[in-house]
Amino acid sequence: MPELRKDPIIGRWVIIATERAKRPDQFAAGVEKEELASGEKCPFCQGNESMTPPEICALRKAGTKPNTPGWDVRVIPYKFPLLHVEGDLNRRAHGMYDLMDAIGAHEIVVETPDHLTEGAPPASQLSKVFGVIIDRIKDLEKDPRIKYVLLVKNYGRAAGGGHIKHQRIQLVGTPVNLKRVKEELAGAKQYYNYKERCVFCDIIKQEIAVGKRVVMESKYFIAIMPFASRFPFETWIMPKEHSCDFYKTSKEIASDLGGIYGGLFAKLKRVIGDFPYNTVLHTAPFRRQMNKRGYWETIENDYHWHLEVLPILTRVAGFEWGSGFYINPLPPQDAYKSVREAKA
Amino acid sequence: MPELRKDPIIGRWVIIATERAKRPDQFAAGVEKEELASGEKCPFCQGNESMTPPEICALRKAGTKPNTPGWDVRVIPYKFPLLHVEGDLNRRAHGMYDLMDAIGAHEIVVETPDHLTEGAPPASQLSKVFGVIIDRIKDLEKDPRIKYVLLVKNYGRAAGGGHIKHQRIQLVGTPVNLKRVKEELAGAKQYYNYKERCVFCDIIKQEIAVGKRVVMESKYFIAIMPFASRFPFETWIMPKEHSCDFYKTSKEIASDLGGIYGGLFAKLKRVIGDFPYNTVLHTAPFRRQMNKRGYWETIENDYHWHLEVLPILTRVAGFEWGSGFYINPLPPQDAYKSVREAKA
Repeated sequence: MPELRKDPIIGRWVIIATERAKRPDQFAAGVEKEELASGEKCPFCQGNESMTPPEICALRKAGTKPNTPGWDVRVIPYKFPLLHVEGDLNRRAHGMYDLMDAIGAHEIVVETPDHLTEGAPPASQLSKVFGVIIDRIKDLEKDPRIKYVLLVKNYGRAAGGGHIKHQRIQLVGTPVNLKRVKEELAGAKQYYNYKERCVFCDIIKQEIAVGKRVVMESKYFIAIMPFASRFPFETWIMPKEHSCDFYKTSKEIASDLGGIYGGLFAKLKRVIGDFPYNTVLHTAPFRRQMNKRGYWETIENDYHWHLEVLPILTRVAGFEWGSGFYINPLPPQDAYKSVREAKA
Repeated sequence: MPELRKDPIIGRWVIIATERAKRPDQFAAGVEKEELASGEKCPFCQGNESMTPPEICALRKAGTKPNTPGWDVRVIPYKFPLLHVEGDLNRRAHGMYDLMDAIGAHEIVVETPDHLTEGAPPASQLSKVFGVIIDRIKDLEKDPRIKYVLLVKNYGRAAGGGHIKHQRIQLVGTPVNLKRVKEELAGAKQYYNYKERCVFCDIIKQEIAVGKRVVMESKYFIAIMPFASRFPFETWIMPKEHSCDFYKTSKEIASDLGGIYGGLFAKLKRVIGDFPYNTVLHTAPFRRQMNKRGYWETIENDYHWHLEVLPILTRVAGFEWGSGFYINPLPPQDAYKSVREAKA
């Protein structure tokens, strides 16, 4: 069973993923495959459904059976999950240290039946994908052991996507709140206490007024390159209307999200080609009414969900590990110019 | 002038390194050089001193002149520094955002005159290196604009070391305290408030008692693979006697640090070959008596400097960016076994 171990100094959790373990001598660097070998089958392609664990759900043509072709979007459990869905947390001590079993959920949302290998699927397809994801999060929210569902995408080798480029998103349901999200919640709360306004709403208003970092705008969303971008071409998509819970988004708004997300990738592809990237979605944690210390009391007002697109075109190194700061060689206002002008 | 920009939500600083900037269309992924091309000269090798800015100091044979051969350890300014040594911070607002000029220090400590390209220099050489570094930090501490000096090493492409593998360490003097260090200070203080003991001292005692993660021990130091290691083979070197300020270390102890650090790399090389890695050193910030809010008051008791060796054999991906947590596929007790038994 994989373990969640807590760093005793800063309280950060680490998943010791024993089921992905290699022997110590297998870590020496080797050449990594960038693509499927000839003759190697992609487990995420239509027709290869038997290569994956049985599907959790799928958006499919009427009359087609589970685990057969005929689907548009397909959700499956991870074959070697980081977090296991069966069992109890079994929180315990190991001397002065704290650990628990790695319980939670780990699912893959296959975004398209076809083996697309560039950028992101078309907007029309993505609109369906976000609809399916919202349904999955609503379902996972019912499991009282799960405190948070993180949406993650790894695309391309440099972004941890492995050698299969078939477009897919991971949903990771964790039994603890996330360090990065806690930092955002605390920062947003501090700003709200001082200003009585949501910091994200203020960013949106300022960026619209300045007009130097707004890459795209749709009916419900805005895509901006943040003032303090960590990475070249880093872009955040935020709902224009204040909202802290992504999973409460309506189907109409989810469809619009697919539109702007697909449009953004079409533009980025014009400028930087087929690039490795990570996407993460930050939303408010579930079950915040359970906390009696007042910590979450203003979360509906002060927090604002958003989707971060992080192109991996540079490397983090010792300075980033040691400081928690970042070095970005491309000012966001320069990245903005080239992307804003690119045709979608 | 490069800028330091503050993320308005979580307060993290980003260096917008305009002097390293490329045009937006130059970020498309290309093949990177792993080594110097034939005929390409290494600027850090003895004999090529004219390729670098004039040296700040060097440990050299009596009678040899600056910027000529005859040195053992050489310190030079960074050619394209992240932080500039000339000027004022000029802290200012940009609408709701905060920024300042990227002022500080950025130096390179060339660890050896020879173009060694595997692991780390021998222990005898490293003992001199750490002595020179301590002298440099003592000098930088005199500059009132510098709040912290971070020791960083990037070795190998995957660790951000570029294509020149000549052994070198960077010293980055920053005008703000570091996010990661603040987290450690806060965590260590919380532990101390509860236990009235240093968390690092407790870790050292527990690890010696358990004997499952102590890779090496010398007269003054211990090298352990942390219980919640983020990376396979992650190893921390800590002084056994409590100390919060690395730069107050005596020459005898600095020499012993070179010994255990060199010995650790000799062992790691036996198990994983010539591997990319980052090294960072975390110590207490300077000038803590300036803070009147009581935050630093117990720092001499509760914080403990340490050196983190981070082999880069896996990739961080969306889960790490989104959560602030890590996934480690090799339990530290397994990494420990193979390294502990390896001959130095």
